[in-house]
Amino acid sequence: MGNNKSMKSIRCKAAVIRGAGEPLQIEEVEVAIPSFGEVRIKIICSSLCHSDITFSRLKDFPGVYPRILGHEAFGVVESVGEGVDEFKVGDSVVPVFLAQCRDCVDCRESQSNLCSKFKFGPEPGMPRDGTTRFTCSDGSPIHHTIFVSSFVEYTVVDAVHLVKVDSRVPPQIACLLSCGVSTGISAAWKVAGVGPGSGVAIFGLGAVGLAVAEGARLRGATKIIGVDLNPAKFETGKKFGLTDFINPNEIGGRPVHEVIKEMTGGSGADYCFECIGLASLMSEAFKSSRQGWGKTVILGVEMHGSPLAIDARELLYGKSIIGSVFGGTKPKEDIPILAKKYLDKELNLEDFITHEVNFQDINKAFDLLLQGKSLRCTIWMDNKKGL
Amino acid sequence: MGNNKSMKSIRCKAAVIRGAGEPLQIEEVEVAIPSFGEVRIKIICSSLCHSDITFSRLKDFPGVYPRILGHEAFGVVESVGEGVDEFKVGDSVVPVFLAQCRDCVDCRESQSNLCSKFKFGPEPGMPRDGTTRFTCSDGSPIHHTIFVSSFVEYTVVDAVHLVKVDSRVPPQIACLLSCGVSTGISAAWKVAGVGPGSGVAIFGLGAVGLAVAEGARLRGATKIIGVDLNPAKFETGKKFGLTDFINPNEIGGRPVHEVIKEMTGGSGADYCFECIGLASLMSEAFKSSRQGWGKTVILGVEMHGSPLAIDARELLYGKSIIGSVFGGTKPKEDIPILAKKYLDKELNLEDFITHEVNFQDINKAFDLLLQGKSLRCTIWMDNKKGL
Ligand SMILES: NC(=O)c1ccc[n+]([C@@H]2O[C@H](COP(=O)([O-])OP(=O)(O)OC[C@H]3O[C@@H](n4cnc5c(N)ncnc54)[C@H](O)[C@@H]3O)[C@@H](O)[C@H]2O)c1
Ligand SMILES: NC(=O)c1ccc[n+]([C@@H]2O[C@H](COP(=O)([O-])OP(=O)(O)OC[C@H]3O[C@@H](n4cnc5c(N)ncnc54)[C@H](O)[C@@H]3O)[C@@H](O)[C@H]2O)c1
Ligand SMILES: [Zn+2]
Ligand SMILES: [Zn+2]
Ligand SMILES: [Zn+2]
Ligand SMILES: [Zn+2]
Repeated sequence: MGNNKSMKSIRCKAAVIRGAGEPLQIEEVEVAIPSFGEVRIKIICSSLCHSDITFSRLKDFPGVYPRILGHEAFGVVESVGEGVDEFKVGDSVVPVFLAQCRDCVDCRESQSNLCSKFKFGPEPGMPRDGTTRFTCSDGSPIHHTIFVSSFVEYTVVDAVHLVKVDSRVPPQIACLLSCGVSTGISAAWKVAGVGPGSGVAIFGLGAVGLAVAEGARLRGATKIIGVDLNPAKFETGKKFGLTDFINPNEIGGRPVHEVIKEMTGGSGADYCFECIGLASLMSEAFKSSRQGWGKTVILGVEMHGSPLAIDARELLYGKSIIGSVFGGTKPKEDIPILAKKYLDKELNLEDFITHEVNFQDINKAFDLLLQGKSLRCTIWMDNKKGL
Repeated sequence: MGNNKSMKSIRCKAAVIRGAGEPLQIEEVEVAIPSFGEVRIKIICSSLCHSDITFSRLKDFPGVYPRILGHEAFGVVESVGEGVDEFKVGDSVVPVFLAQCRDCVDCRESQSNLCSKFKFGPEPGMPRDGTTRFTCSDGSPIHHTIFVSSFVEYTVVDAVHLVKVDSRVPPQIACLLSCGVSTGISAAWKVAGVGPGSGVAIFGLGAVGLAVAEGARLRGATKIIGVDLNPAKFETGKKFGLTDFINPNEIGGRPVHEVIKEMTGGSGADYCFECIGLASLMSEAFKSSRQGWGKTVILGVEMHGSPLAIDARELLYGKSIIGSVFGGTKPKEDIPILAKKYLDKELNLEDFITHEVNFQDINKAFDLLLQGKSLRCTIWMDNKKGL
């Protein structure tokens, strides 16, 4: 139950972005009390997903500034607003960019993970009223990012965007389940339905792509081909089941789909995943998929908003393309399942964490991801934790 | 078993196309004896599918001339080549453009209907050796069309392209199952998996589109919206379960997908089908599909070879596009099932036949389809039949 009367706004530190492509600045902000249905959480750690880089560069709407980025996080409930029964102070939680009201037609339907009551979209405010819970020292508002905004010591999220996790899962691991890693694993399991003995091609070996590999490996795929410009990703990828690697710059100018067909006995991969965010590679993934049943799963958020062009006649050969937000993850049901699989030592999650930084060094996390050095870099809010 | 020694080539009449966009000419041709694995059939009737119109206009490969078009047909086995056990003289058969060898990985897998031993493709010869079985009076070869070529009194097809049908099914009805009608019904059942209470939008109300409607109706879809430039198609469509109609020219310049969203309570259709063959309408179908699980099924053969452009970010909202040849029909298994449903009076097939012509008037069948007057026009080889 809410305890609004005794609650106060909190002054704390945030990493604010003030213009497209600018570095984040650590600033003091004021975080309002949670309104009806909302929860205020103390962020323990975040990690950086490529989607935040895409957001940080948007010049036009949905690029709005100043804003607080960050949507992969782990925290502890600090206070709850009126009407919230599901959470209490002290709960270990993971905020998620997709809502789950558990009541609408989509939430009740296993096929969909797009709540139709609390719709996913690029609007930079809170889901119920569109306003923000953050203000600068001069009193002007600071915008949210996809209903999470975790690059701040305290944030406010709607209870429909929050998932309780077993407190035995370490913060930096639970954090991964908040976006990229759940996206990849669920995409392999729920969207593609990868089965034993199948052939998989993954374009882009960041955390999302390698989580697809981990998911495919656990479902018994026997050929897991990774495509990446960064040759170092092959070694990393082997930890997640990668069996083959293609560097598009080292195949003598041939198209990637030709090489994938060769590697799969001439037919193409049963499942192809695009985990980069470039329309040209989505087309290439489609061409690499097998006639008869080849499925291409799009996870990458197109960086430039370019349209995807596919050969309409090639599609007729029994091929399909499907896109997915969060890889089909239904947050409140699936994240606890993944956490349990981690605790049962079925899932390899540790290897996704390659770096960690203190909050004040958050821009270093951006550099590491952009340079292809990190998979996930944990950003600790409290310097004493972790480092 | 084959009886090559006693067999002779047959001189008979064919409707030959000698150049892109030209009318067919009735000519005398010589039909060779069936080679190993092949069957020669006496065509009783054909019907005209839009794909033949698309083929008849192709200037470049796979447009080759002279050629015998026609791939929706019913016939009777006249003779069989060596190595054929499945058919005997006198069998009622339907030739099909998709092979089913029953032995390759695709034929054994329920998901695929694209035999990987006898591949579907635009090559204008017989599947095993690429040569033709037709010659003109001057001895020069005449090409085949997608392994059927039924606009001729006798044709030769490979046994993998032939399906036996119950002789109680009238020829003109069995003929429909050879392509368009099976395509539409199977697409609704097997590719989309239309379920009770769902909303369906169909772009193009020819035989293919209306067969989708018939399939959706039988699966309990409650809203079946048809989109067509020809207003007469609404009345026709009601016979196959159409509940709503949109004429793109009569919605005040608004995009069709907006109107479909309105008609489906704001969300869009659960299943959209493109049955015309224009990339622009495939995009429109995609936009009309529901977030969360909307499936767009492409059946139209793109007339101009234009690529299909879709918004890569819209795809992320749980939407998918899938294409299919023959609507996922596995000919040797599914055509007998459809024939049985017809005999059991479950399927409305009669209403697909709107016209009939004698063979010498075959060009009239083209005009009727192009003018949107016919769904299927039966082309009788023997004037005494039917008319
Ligand atoms: N659908 C969703 O819900 C969802 C969730 C999370 C992330 N994403 C998206 O998934 C994508 C991947 O995210 P990430 O965090 O794993 O990113 P990342 O930066 O860690 O990984 C991207 C990988 O792609 C490789 N790459 C870049 N350009 C390439 C090219 N032209 N050819 C081959 N490889 C190339 C890079 O070397 C890198 O290894 C992004 O588009 C992100 O926005 C989507
Ligand atoms: N995938 C397959 O296996 C398969 C099998 C058979 C046919 N096809 C294809 O399916 C399509 C339909 O075949 P059919 O025989 O039913 O054709 P048809 O000519 O009988 O029907 C096409 C319909 O589309 C309508 N139409 C045309 N342009 C339109 C536009 N711009 N907007 C709205 N409506 C429009 C026409 O009025 C007509 O009613 C063709 O592309 C054909 O090649 C594919
Ligand atoms: Zn993310
Ligand atoms: Zn909901
Ligand atoms: Zn056809
Ligand atoms: Zn086969």
